[in-house]
Amino acid sequence: MKCITVLTDFGLRDGNVGVMKGVIWNIAPDAQIADLSHTVEPQNILMAALIMGRSCPYFPEGTVHVAVVDPGVGTARRPIAALVGDRYFVGPDNGLFTPLVERAEKAGLPIKVVHLTKKEFFLEDISYVFHGRDIFAPVAAHLANGTRLEDLGELVEDYVRNEIPRPEFVDGQWFGKVVHIDYFGNIATNVRKEHLAGQDACVKLAGIELCGLVNTFGEKPVGELVVLYGSTGDLIISVVNGNAAERLGVEIGDPVVVKPLLK
Amino acid sequence: MKCITVLTDFGLRDGNVGVMKGVIWNIAPDAQIADLSHTVEPQNILMAALIMGRSCPYFPEGTVHVAVVDPGVGTARRPIAALVGDRYFVGPDNGLFTPLVERAEKAGLPIKVVHLTKKEFFLEDISYVFHGRDIFAPVAAHLANGTRLEDLGELVEDYVRNEIPRPEFVDGQWFGKVVHIDYFGNIATNVRKEHLAGQDACVKLAGIELCGLVNTFGEKPVGELVVLYGSTGDLIISVVNGNAAERLGVEIGDPVVVKPLLK
Amino acid sequence: MKCITVLTDFGLRDGNVGVMKGVIWNIAPDAQIADLSHTVEPQNILMAALIMGRSCPYFPEGTVHVAVVDPGVGTARRPIAALVGDRYFVGPDNGLFTPLVERAEKAGLPIKVVHLTKKEFFLEDISYVFHGRDIFAPVAAHLANGTRLEDLGELVEDYVRNEIPRPEFVDGQWFGKVVHIDYFGNIATNVRKEHLAGQDACVKLAGIELCGLVNTFGEKPVGELVVLYGSTGDLIISVVNGNAAERLGVEIGDPVVVKPLLK
Repeated sequence: MKCITVLTDFGLRDGNVGVMKGVIWNIAPDAQIADLSHTVEPQNILMAALIMGRSCPYFPEGTVHVAVVDPGVGTARRPIAALVGDRYFVGPDNGLFTPLVERAEKAGLPIKVVHLTKKEFFLEDISYVFHGRDIFAPVAAHLANGTRLEDLGELVEDYVRNEIPRPEFVDGQWFGKVVHIDYFGNIATNVRKEHLAGQDACVKLAGIELCGLVNTFGEKPVGELVVLYGSTGDLIISVVNGNAAERLGVEIGDPVVVKPLLK
Repeated sequence: MKCITVLTDFGLRDGNVGVMKGVIWNIAPDAQIADLSHTVEPQNILMAALIMGRSCPYFPEGTVHVAVVDPGVGTARRPIAALVGDRYFVGPDNGLFTPLVERAEKAGLPIKVVHLTKKEFFLEDISYVFHGRDIFAPVAAHLANGTRLEDLGELVEDYVRNEIPRPEFVDGQWFGKVVHIDYFGNIATNVRKEHLAGQDACVKLAGIELCGLVNTFGEKPVGELVVLYGSTGDLIISVVNGNAAERLGVEIGDPVVVKPLLK
Repeated sequence: MKCITVLTDFGLRDGNVGVMKGVIWNIAPDAQIADLSHTVEPQNILMAALIMGRSCPYFPEGTVHVAVVDPGVGTARRPIAALVGDRYFVGPDNGLFTPLVERAEKAGLPIKVVHLTKKEFFLEDISYVFHGRDIFAPVAAHLANGTRLEDLGELVEDYVRNEIPRPEFVDGQWFGKVVHIDYFGNIATNVRKEHLAGQDACVKLAGIELCGLVNTFGEKPVGELVVLYGSTGDLIISVVNGNAAERLGVEIGDPVVVKPLLK
């Protein structure tokens, strides 16, 4: 039984996600399909890439991860499929899978990317505007069925990489950014556990300073601002049982400064 | 392995969609279930029918499509199931499946509709207000299991058809309507590719005129208004990487005039 | 084939629900997974418990119901799993499964609860903030695979019960509360069919009085306020094809008085 995950910016109302599942089940009738997200901000490739980076590694080896955030659909941007370590990616060549690539590189795992050129693996009619349905879903289903990556097109080396924003260390402080705000209003930054290497810290954002990390929300009273590590090791700012982003008026891209406190 | 799709106006928070899946898996434990949409505007049968019309044909032959947008639940409106070409429909008799019927008629495929009267295929207790759970989900599961349509009730010919709005051609112009606005804010009209038959066109709506179709969004700069064919052949008006419905203040039902340009 | 349901307050955008499915399929590759709800109001344990109470009984015997509304994640609150009658619950020990417990008690069915202490059934690294991924999803998958409840930890008797609000009968009237408002704006109260025992009634809320129950929405004209029983037997106030909660400005927790009318 093969797993396929689907991430898009299609929203949930118009039926387009369902259509992709129909196409997949036509080709791979027993594929298990999980939705990763369909409410990515329209055309926000970076948001999609970050969600994939934190989610995909928890799926079984061999899972096929389809992602369709695709402002260039129907233009010269290439459709690609890739083997990234022990899992597959299928989608437009616009950097959506960069965090998966970086992870595989760090682990010394193989990365192979093909430009999807073999039309026998697509639907018969290819629209200009819905490659999720016409190209990516059928290719994902064929991969789940065991088709070899190399049979889907030509190997390419010059695939697009997205620049994932990194914090800079200057004068003893990490200068980073807000990279995500989740459903609870937790503010995720690109300063990570490995940057602090076990040190406590003070965090400045939105004109305030918070000193001292906690392990989890419930250590402080309801309504209090806390700094802690999120579930994938990013430094987050939260309000206990509340919405930190609303409270502080913070948006994605806002600057954050993290000062490690020497032990 | 049989596929079942579910479309409702139940929203995603209250658990009612999950309940229908539970009922299905009680009867057909290995059914693959895909959500088509659960955020159809409450009681908007036409929106639901249009979503089904564009989505269902991409599912495998034999798929059972359940749809529950059902303002008449518990009244004299009949529960029905139907064989429409090579797939099944289950839901209230209120025209939800009209686009599927029209499609089958155009292709010369058989259509058989039964009034669901055999209670042995329902849950034991039938509420007045949730036939999705009590009637439609169990009937869909029985169809997926191979129960013959004819065994579920009496054949009827006078099932309800929904009037799907069509554009009119007057004095060399198509007078149509906005029929859908998707998650991106793309404005879909009921003027279709086959109406223009390869001709270019000028489109008037919301007090502006746009001349010349493009193939896809990325042909024009970000923020520009474009006219193109959507993924199922309907003429759409979009803003490149933006929200056309918001920009133009357009709503479903608004008039649109399309003037073909002679080649 | 085993069913697993997942209910959280994680929202649908951030990928966390998908991650839980990935973890489950790593351990139980053929588990059927249904979403119950992921847009429970953040930290609203009672809303989650009520949704579970009305939804879970429709799933097959042996289904594993995971619920993660977990303000105490990472604190001393215990992770638990339970056999509740003929189904399983996995989640934090904060009363999420109280309606399932009450239902089993009423039916005289067994209830066994274990404190999850056996780390071999968890992911290797346990974060402080995402036990849905690190503890509850893997434990649910092991239960679906046939692991015995008793092997997962130590039996406990002092598990947390949530207080489910009940109406009081004083001077011939039921004094209850609004307990849920659904996607349609239907107002659900905690006065139930069994409280009225077949009698008609007058309902007072939000400064108005409505006398006489109907069976279903379609018995009255569009736009009219009606009182009826919802699909699980709770007395609800609705606007035919409209939104009663918006019309009346009602919120969860608001008082409602129901006066039975002698036959």
